[in-house]
Amino acid sequence: MTGIWQDIKLDSEHKLPLYKQISEQVEKMVYQGKLKPGTRLPAERKLADYLQVSRMTITLANEDMKTKGIIRSQQGSGTFIMRGPRRERVHTKTKWQSNFVYETDTMNHGLEAIIKFGQNSESIQLARAGTAPEIHPGIGISECLAECLRKHPKLIQLPSPTQGYEPLHSYMLEWLKESELYPKKSEMMIVSGAMQGLDLISRLFLGPGDYVIVEEPGFQVASDAFTASGAQILRITLDKEGMKLDNLEQLLRNFPVKFIYLNPTFHNPTGITMSQKRRQDLLVLAKKYHVLIIEDDPTGLLYYGKKPAPPLKARDEEGMIIYIRSFSKYLFPELRVGVLVAPEGVITNLTKIKQRIDLHSNVLTQAAVYTFLSEGRLTPHLQRVRKAYKVRVDMVQEALSKSKAVSVQVPEGGIFAWCKLEHGLSSERLLDLALPDVSLVPGNWMSGTGMYENYFRLAFTNPSLEQLKRGLNKIVEIIDREDMKT
Amino acid sequence: MTGIWQDIKLDSEHKLPLYKQISEQVEKMVYQGKLKPGTRLPAERKLADYLQVSRMTITLANEDMKTKGIIRSQQGSGTFIMRGPRRERVHTKTKWQSNFVYETDTMNHGLEAIIKFGQNSESIQLARAGTAPEIHPGIGISECLAECLRKHPKLIQLPSPTQGYEPLHSYMLEWLKESELYPKKSEMMIVSGAMQGLDLISRLFLGPGDYVIVEEPGFQVASDAFTASGAQILRITLDKEGMKLDNLEQLLRNFPVKFIYLNPTFHNPTGITMSQKRRQDLLVLAKKYHVLIIEDDPTGLLYYGKKPAPPLKARDEEGMIIYIRSFSKYLFPELRVGVLVAPEGVITNLTKIKQRIDLHSNVLTQAAVYTFLSEGRLTPHLQRVRKAYKVRVDMVQEALSKSKAVSVQVPEGGIFAWCKLEHGLSSERLLDLALPDVSLVPGNWMSGTGMYENYFRLAFTNPSLEQLKRGLNKIVEIIDREDMKT
Repeated sequence: MTGIWQDIKLDSEHKLPLYKQISEQVEKMVYQGKLKPGTRLPAERKLADYLQVSRMTITLANEDMKTKGIIRSQQGSGTFIMRGPRRERVHTKTKWQSNFVYETDTMNHGLEAIIKFGQNSESIQLARAGTAPEIHPGIGISECLAECLRKHPKLIQLPSPTQGYEPLHSYMLEWLKESELYPKKSEMMIVSGAMQGLDLISRLFLGPGDYVIVEEPGFQVASDAFTASGAQILRITLDKEGMKLDNLEQLLRNFPVKFIYLNPTFHNPTGITMSQKRRQDLLVLAKKYHVLIIEDDPTGLLYYGKKPAPPLKARDEEGMIIYIRSFSKYLFPELRVGVLVAPEGVITNLTKIKQRIDLHSNVLTQAAVYTFLSEGRLTPHLQRVRKAYKVRVDMVQEALSKSKAVSVQVPEGGIFAWCKLEHGLSSERLLDLALPDVSLVPGNWMSGTGMYENYFRLAFTNPSLEQLKRGLNKIVEIIDREDMKT
Repeated sequence: MTGIWQDIKLDSEHKLPLYKQISEQVEKMVYQGKLKPGTRLPAERKLADYLQVSRMTITLANEDMKTKGIIRSQQGSGTFIMRGPRRERVHTKTKWQSNFVYETDTMNHGLEAIIKFGQNSESIQLARAGTAPEIHPGIGISECLAECLRKHPKLIQLPSPTQGYEPLHSYMLEWLKESELYPKKSEMMIVSGAMQGLDLISRLFLGPGDYVIVEEPGFQVASDAFTASGAQILRITLDKEGMKLDNLEQLLRNFPVKFIYLNPTFHNPTGITMSQKRRQDLLVLAKKYHVLIIEDDPTGLLYYGKKPAPPLKARDEEGMIIYIRSFSKYLFPELRVGVLVAPEGVITNLTKIKQRIDLHSNVLTQAAVYTFLSEGRLTPHLQRVRKAYKVRVDMVQEALSKSKAVSVQVPEGGIFAWCKLEHGLSSERLLDLALPDVSLVPGNWMSGTGMYENYFRLAFTNPSLEQLKRGLNKIVEIIDREDMKT
């Protein structure tokens, strides 16, 4: 029991109930900086004994603090202080900060860092997921857009329905059939990247008191979108067949879970693809507990060897899955074009929300993607991408094999290699030493539990082949250096 | 004490604490439809006496229900049931609706209708705000994008910072100076249309219990964005000098208002421009009551005669104004490009939120706008637009003067004409009779009070000149028809 908790002074005569007194004093300590974000709270029983109050009082205090976003419970690992002390960042006479209701400080900051790395053209980007220069379709897309605009200058003057620019929307319906997905027109919408899809879903489905199950490690930006809507996150680890279903059922039995968010094919960051058996069992479980599934599938078409199983959505007899696909990894991220497949009633409502967010995704880009696809350029492009990325993943494997202190989980598709450091070496230490020359993503940036300090994620699709080789060698060289151990 | 509360049955032996029993039973009644949204809860003390529990128990029950979003306290006016009963709209085995938390039904449906009108290429669009064919820059923009992409194909491969594609962002800073706005780099961001700006602001600033003041009539899509974040809307009418400040001060005195949202130049829909005197007084009031201002300025550069006063933001010594400008009316709406100016601390946080929404606005469009602007094409383009729209507004005035039953408030700029029907004629009736040939916006679609039944808004920039003439004549013909009176 650390000293800080002694500062909580309770007064049973006070007009405020005890639980409120506790919650407000903790909040004060947080804002004064006495309690740092990440601090673990004592077990409820311990704190109750210590403050000589009922356990219920502590439970209520915690509930109150969760509502305010001061603390958050991590499944299994305890309850932690979330916010940092109030900072005055605004140089203006008006106190804007005091009016904010959206807590941006609680967000996972990996994304900011990754974007910042991306701005530095000097360094070798192994953190950010980009498109390899040798197969970048930017020129092709802009050429056929230019060509197409010369022929039909009015193309970009068609108003776009919120659900998507008509020509692209229709083309998508056809294209999805290759993945055994057969949505009706009313069951699909174009979104400004998969992230907008996740944001729309969070707004439609999630509020305080809701629970969402995600993969651990996993795509933290999604978890941020869910928590931004007030949901609590429950995390489940993966084995080589994907999400562990025994743990899943345990959670489904004990929590009112709204949906399961997962990336079953070439999982980010581990590269694991959920087995056929596991997929069937997952659908059975989801049906049994009436829980919805959000299937994020950004790289399913980037297989190096044999084509993976079709999306979960292709086996969705219950209509309980929302499927999201993005073009960020198939074409390039700067386009911000994604597609979302869901039951009609869901699309109708997501569309209404999108209408209030950006009216519709912009037409110029939708027209560009449409022309590229409709000229049949995507299929040959994807074949080139698969070949190119196989070369790169082999390069990663070969380079990292030079050190005994690191092992790499070689994926069968996708754009990430998930690597493990031996002898308790820290990946954040590795990043510190690698920057500014090389960037990578420490395991804990992909984790909600902070239990992946020895892992790191390499995005091998971004730099030129020559840069990639140099970057990998640099990493291996650092890993074996003495100062990694300190 | 209404009967409904008798249905709450408490059991002190039950494993659930009393406050939980109350909260869960109320939730049940809400979902069964027994308690309607908007129902006021009895005063805590009254309910406590009635249920023979401690007042604390009621306080905790209410807090629990607030957390779940079942009830909400309105400053001063009490506590109310928020959610409606669950509805089943989806034709799928999974009950999606029962999981929705975002109430799309409460939205103003004018926007949906206007977009739907836009899809019908047969009808003459006087509802939707578009760009006139004779000055549509689509071809010019696509030409110089194509040209520019031939020269620099890698242009669209630059990762875009969330705050905006670097070349466009820098150019904007220069361009804003023409409007007497001198933001620093850190005080401006590119957004996917003004609507995304309003959405970001709502998320950062607004939560349940917040109040926002808007103009009545006004841009209802903005009010929707504010209410979607749980804010309450207060409405103030305009006189010929703009928002009525006596009413404003009355509200500021009585409500904890977070911000005032207004469109001071060529107001949508009335076309009114706030007078110099009124602008000064508004800033004094805002300072006195420490209230923030959101200035929406979509058409300020589209003046037909003399240039209007600079934006309020240009006189913002307190740093209390967020300024939003869009290119939808200067170039064309399908581009979805806008710019937002605010104090650094606000931009920092809006940027963090945008990062979770769409990472960044897409690069292709930002590059297109950049090339068009940087080649100096915007200034001559805007001159053409002003001339073209002056011709059109004169046409509206001339056409409508043919009927004694309608009068038009002629604007000095912008793209809308605000028209009034005499003899209590209804504009929704007018729309019914005009469709499908001609569309327009009934006054009540631009109102939160439903007091503008006799008004309608004409967007005169959309169709060809010939179509516009036909559309206007059709409207006049209908207004004077017998069946308008029924």
